[in-house]
Amino acid sequence: MSPLIHPTALVSPKAKLGKNVSIGQFTTIYDNVVIGDDSEVGAYCELGVANKFSAGEALEIGVGALIRSHSIFYEASTFGDRLVTGHRVTVREKTRAGANLQIGTLTDIQGSCRIGDYVRMHSNVHVGQHSTIGDYVWIFPYVVLTNDPHPPSDVMRGCTIEDYAVVATMTTILPGVKVGKHALVGAHSLLGADAQPGKIYAGKAAEERGDVTAIRLKDGTRRPAYPWIRHFRRGYPASVIAQWEKMLDEGLV
Amino acid sequence: MSPLIHPTALVSPKAKLGKNVSIGQFTTIYDNVVIGDDSEVGAYCELGVANKFSAGEALEIGVGALIRSHSIFYEASTFGDRLVTGHRVTVREKTRAGANLQIGTLTDIQGSCRIGDYVRMHSNVHVGQHSTIGDYVWIFPYVVLTNDPHPPSDVMRGCTIEDYAVVATMTTILPGVKVGKHALVGAHSLLGADAQPGKIYAGKAAEERGDVTAIRLKDGTRRPAYPWIRHFRRGYPASVIAQWEKMLDEGLV
Amino acid sequence: MSPLIHPTALVSPKAKLGKNVSIGQFTTIYDNVVIGDDSEVGAYCELGVANKFSAGEALEIGVGALIRSHSIFYEASTFGDRLVTGHRVTVREKTRAGANLQIGTLTDIQGSCRIGDYVRMHSNVHVGQHSTIGDYVWIFPYVVLTNDPHPPSDVMRGCTIEDYAVVATMTTILPGVKVGKHALVGAHSLLGADAQPGKIYAGKAAEERGDVTAIRLKDGTRRPAYPWIRHFRRGYPASVIAQWEKMLDEGLV
Repeated sequence: MSPLIHPTALVSPKAKLGKNVSIGQFTTIYDNVVIGDDSEVGAYCELGVANKFSAGEALEIGVGALIRSHSIFYEASTFGDRLVTGHRVTVREKTRAGANLQIGTLTDIQGSCRIGDYVRMHSNVHVGQHSTIGDYVWIFPYVVLTNDPHPPSDVMRGCTIEDYAVVATMTTILPGVKVGKHALVGAHSLLGADAQPGKIYAGKAAEERGDVTAIRLKDGTRRPAYPWIRHFRRGYPASVIAQWEKMLDEGLV
Repeated sequence: MSPLIHPTALVSPKAKLGKNVSIGQFTTIYDNVVIGDDSEVGAYCELGVANKFSAGEALEIGVGALIRSHSIFYEASTFGDRLVTGHRVTVREKTRAGANLQIGTLTDIQGSCRIGDYVRMHSNVHVGQHSTIGDYVWIFPYVVLTNDPHPPSDVMRGCTIEDYAVVATMTTILPGVKVGKHALVGAHSLLGADAQPGKIYAGKAAEERGDVTAIRLKDGTRRPAYPWIRHFRRGYPASVIAQWEKMLDEGLV
Repeated sequence: MSPLIHPTALVSPKAKLGKNVSIGQFTTIYDNVVIGDDSEVGAYCELGVANKFSAGEALEIGVGALIRSHSIFYEASTFGDRLVTGHRVTVREKTRAGANLQIGTLTDIQGSCRIGDYVRMHSNVHVGQHSTIGDYVWIFPYVVLTNDPHPPSDVMRGCTIEDYAVVATMTTILPGVKVGKHALVGAHSLLGADAQPGKIYAGKAAEERGDVTAIRLKDGTRRPAYPWIRHFRRGYPASVIAQWEKMLDEGLV
């Protein structure tokens, strides 16, 4: 076995690994896997997981890949060269992705997606089945691309994110919606209709609602719930609590 | 040892496995675990994790379960037959769930919950402690069921999701709130009061806010921040950047 | 080897473990790791992951730590005493944290952050690079602290969360924004400007939008999409479907 394969790794003899491919400790490479030259697979990964939808097609990963630890890839997806992932990435079957894709930690690509070149998804992005993503697209943390127009149903309408578009943190794109080229969808938005090319879309920002002391405890006492140091002290040392008492006594908070 | 138990798995002799139960590579089954016949536990899982709240009660899982890889279940919860999970599921102690539960990848059930039959939670759902979920409920990605009416505090009011209700993607249900039978809470909403049975509830969608070029760089230059290809080029090859320059020169973007 | 180190764990002889430190099964401890006395590291963890930014500095963890399973810590961060984490935590390089930090399951700290004492982050929090968090701060599930004012760019402006502040579930803090002492940012909010000390900030809650039956199926039939039991029955047994038919026939839903 190659010295680049950790002795605790479980690598199927049917898997096709290129030259200079390293495999980390406790990682499993199943049968239907093809990995290009000069790639690195971290520890605790599973590559080539089979399921009833994958029909025995291979997972194919291009040259120069870096797959960080605890990641899971199913059979029957293909990735161009220089794939880079964070940790704990999950990628299901039947996705076709171009070169230079970056997938952040915890991101979950649900399968049957089309992804172009130089796409960068940050941490904890959820890409629903049948999404179509162009080239040079950016998707930021906690973005969800949905696909069911009236969940639950058997109707599936994937989203389309066109070239160069940017979808900012914690935004949901509703089913079948298209984000046009160079459009920017702002953080924490819900996009329910197509975003026109080159336009900004955004939801509503938080506003001041008064003093925190106006909120009362729902424990029957109606004491103020904030500052929370008045009533919540579990796990703090007596010295800290004494200091809080003093701050409260002196009206400092 | 059963040929269905991978040789690298660590299975306590005190655990009670039914007939035809398979255990994946590097998986740990601790002492207080009961798994029904015809079940499959994937790789890298931990079943029966003990903690100070579990008091040595068993984790009980019915027949026909499929628990996908990297999942963690604590002691002292019970699941009906035909449980199916995605990857990296976390389930804490003292949850009682019915039959045919589906739990998506990355979903986190925090413990002391009641869950009915045929409930389907999609990926990355967060179910706070003391939630009550009826039968045939659907919960979509990135939904959070909260429980503290004025965090942090020692007051805990779990949410209730009644039969057949649907909670769509990236919605937060505030503490103690009830979603009535057949109600639909739309994507990216914040539900702060009870949802009446059979009604739709939804938040506010994103609106167009003008051209992306109106946003200026905060690096002192006040150049336009979008299209981002004007100023952000790290990691792209020279050939791509040259093409972008040409597009910009020719006013194509 | 210490009887507290599981025989399947891979512990570098260069790592410096204090007295009474236990290491779980299949866990990897790399070279540049220092762990204080009376600490427990769960199973399937990786501590001391190297990368090009860490420059060979050690990961230093104080006494009395509890790091739950499947967690990943990079080199070149330091933590005070009594660190407690949930499962699947990810912490990148160059973070400096005080004592009594709690980090919830799935939380992702991206690196180069400053974190005070007694900070409690709940599950699935995302702390962007260069965030500054004071003492006694609370951050609840699915909160994201961002840092790029016009993503993607090379400009990075971390958020600041001052002492005792509370950021509730599924809230996004925009880049460079400061949450003042004792302020409360409500659930599911987008905070785009500084939150003044002791004030409440909140977004917009969901409103009733009519009957669920007003939503029509987009499969060409324009039948009602809700109650969904009218049209979506995949995977339910015939007996349940028969009961649903009866409920619908009798007008009970």
